[in-house]
Amino acid sequence: MSTQADRAAAVRARLAGAGAEALLVSSLTNIRWLTGFTGSNGWVVVGPDDLVLVTDGRYGDQAEAQLATAGTPGRVRVAPNGPALIAAVAAESSGFGALGFEAHDVTVHQHTQLQSAGLPRLVPTVGLVEAGRRRKDAAEIAAIARACAIADQALAEVLADLPGGLTEADVRNRLDARMRELGASGPSYDTIVAAGPVNGALPHHRPTSTPLTAGDLVVIDVGALVDGYHSDMTRTFCVGPPTADQLDKYDLVLRAQLAGLAAVRPGTTGRDVDAACRSIISDAGLGEWFSHGTGHGVGLLIHEDPYNTAASADVLADGDVVTVEPGVYRGGFGGIRVEDLVVVTSDGCRVLTSSPKDSLCPLSPPTT
Amino acid sequence: MSTQADRAAAVRARLAGAGAEALLVSSLTNIRWLTGFTGSNGWVVVGPDDLVLVTDGRYGDQAEAQLATAGTPGRVRVAPNGPALIAAVAAESSGFGALGFEAHDVTVHQHTQLQSAGLPRLVPTVGLVEAGRRRKDAAEIAAIARACAIADQALAEVLADLPGGLTEADVRNRLDARMRELGASGPSYDTIVAAGPVNGALPHHRPTSTPLTAGDLVVIDVGALVDGYHSDMTRTFCVGPPTADQLDKYDLVLRAQLAGLAAVRPGTTGRDVDAACRSIISDAGLGEWFSHGTGHGVGLLIHEDPYNTAASADVLADGDVVTVEPGVYRGGFGGIRVEDLVVVTSDGCRVLTSSPKDSLCPLSPPTT
Repeated sequence: MSTQADRAAAVRARLAGAGAEALLVSSLTNIRWLTGFTGSNGWVVVGPDDLVLVTDGRYGDQAEAQLATAGTPGRVRVAPNGPALIAAVAAESSGFGALGFEAHDVTVHQHTQLQSAGLPRLVPTVGLVEAGRRRKDAAEIAAIARACAIADQALAEVLADLPGGLTEADVRNRLDARMRELGASGPSYDTIVAAGPVNGALPHHRPTSTPLTAGDLVVIDVGALVDGYHSDMTRTFCVGPPTADQLDKYDLVLRAQLAGLAAVRPGTTGRDVDAACRSIISDAGLGEWFSHGTGHGVGLLIHEDPYNTAASADVLADGDVVTVEPGVYRGGFGGIRVEDLVVVTSDGCRVLTSSPKDSLCPLSPPTT
Repeated sequence: MSTQADRAAAVRARLAGAGAEALLVSSLTNIRWLTGFTGSNGWVVVGPDDLVLVTDGRYGDQAEAQLATAGTPGRVRVAPNGPALIAAVAAESSGFGALGFEAHDVTVHQHTQLQSAGLPRLVPTVGLVEAGRRRKDAAEIAAIARACAIADQALAEVLADLPGGLTEADVRNRLDARMRELGASGPSYDTIVAAGPVNGALPHHRPTSTPLTAGDLVVIDVGALVDGYHSDMTRTFCVGPPTADQLDKYDLVLRAQLAGLAAVRPGTTGRDVDAACRSIISDAGLGEWFSHGTGHGVGLLIHEDPYNTAASADVLADGDVVTVEPGVYRGGFGGIRVEDLVVVTSDGCRVLTSSPKDSLCPLSPPTT
């Protein structure tokens, strides 16, 4: 069986426990994973013996080609967008007594529309496809590893040739352009370059025209997108020689991050991984400076299951791909974050990102 | 009153007819428009006399700063992500007998979670904030016009210096990098460069390593993002001298597009604008080649109300910003699309995109 046939079969197996004969898949990410289709509009009906993708006229030829390329056992039905598209979904579902739908994706308003379109009885389900998406196969891990390697190389090349006077946005532009030149279809998310005591204190800062200035800590959070799969990595630098305080806090974050990596193995909970990082930072008295979770799953989405957070009961398993990314942030000081992307293996994890992190590196040559 | 205060007041006025005392805003786009907050996680409760943004620790400082900068009369409440965040929303809503929610944004699963979190009686609403977002004010139109100007300039500069042998992805990379250098925060959507008889036949093709080849038609669909606002434009070129058939079909699409622009005025329906374009292409016998709608609204989203499609009853109004973008596509021929972005004025429309379109231009110097 093809990978795509295996995936549909696994969804059918999980569907049996949900009290529905077929599943209506609305999440475009799930549709991509099940069928290879990358268009922006479509529904998939996974029946016991059949899979149908319903999409609009913009995507008919593309859908046929993508399903064939992926080896998806299924067919494409084209209908005009709007009510006619929903009517086509209803026609393709008419033989089933109960139709599961993705309650975590379908809005309350869409649900009302589906109910009035003459679909079978709708049964809410949560995460039936995501349960399969979580454990990455070898091809998926290879795509993520390629994305990591592109971000590593782009970061090294951009920092090796950094003229003075550049702004956060300049550095972001160079990273994004270089990742594209290296074969990424784009950045994996909005690349973060956060410099200095104000911007750096915002964990999710968007790059601005603020120039990198001597003494600044600079948080760079960068990933690439390859074949739909994301990478995610953060490194922190200093413009010119760091102070003793900057070095101390960098070493603290790095120790926390290494402890987090050491905690990642099958059977560990996301909460445990978070605690491994957080306890080190808290013990140093900076618990309040660590204002976000320790990590998240990465795949066709940049944030997906499982989560490494204080509240997460997710149990890590072989094939999970997750970040480990503690950080400290404070207005007037700035920010430090160290993040790697890892794949859980049978006895621990393999780190997929490889940019140097052993010390708080001065950006070289120092910019003004 | 500030713009932000006006926007909240307009939401309150529309809420009165919905049978709810307050509105829970979940759409991040709506939250940005109401408050200026650009983070990736948050809920807003708009009460009769108050506005509260509930977000997590990553965004606390950012949210305070952005609400202040935008002049939003309201406050920020920070809670850990997850159930505690929903509990904070419940606490902020506890005084209301009935709470409207955005039924077009909240998923069925979220709705179940909200119901079990002790919120007031939940009343579904659709589009209360979007109704305000549709008509753009002068500052919004200025941002969109800046985005258009950046895309115009990037396209002109990239095409003026186009060495032979470039691929679709190369051209996309140059456009995206140049838009960033010119001040865009990024492309407005995934830039389309679709060349030749196979790729060009897909209206929403993603750029590949296919080189631009003599004789190819090349569809370039490019927009910039400025202050959160999008632009959208498509031009079609020919690699080397066009054939008579390519010229004929280009002129057909251009005539259709000009007819569409001439139809745009207050009081016209989206259906009328679509028919103005479609009838010309259908009369020439190519109706089946025009496989998508004629246009859509553009603002904080790249696709938003109103729509210019065969089924659209949307009535255009002064301040709407919409695309007019007929095209023809066929495997073996390729594609042609001409698209402008316009703002509806009191007596017609003003075209915001200004790249030349009078004729099917050979890419110069011709590649390969």
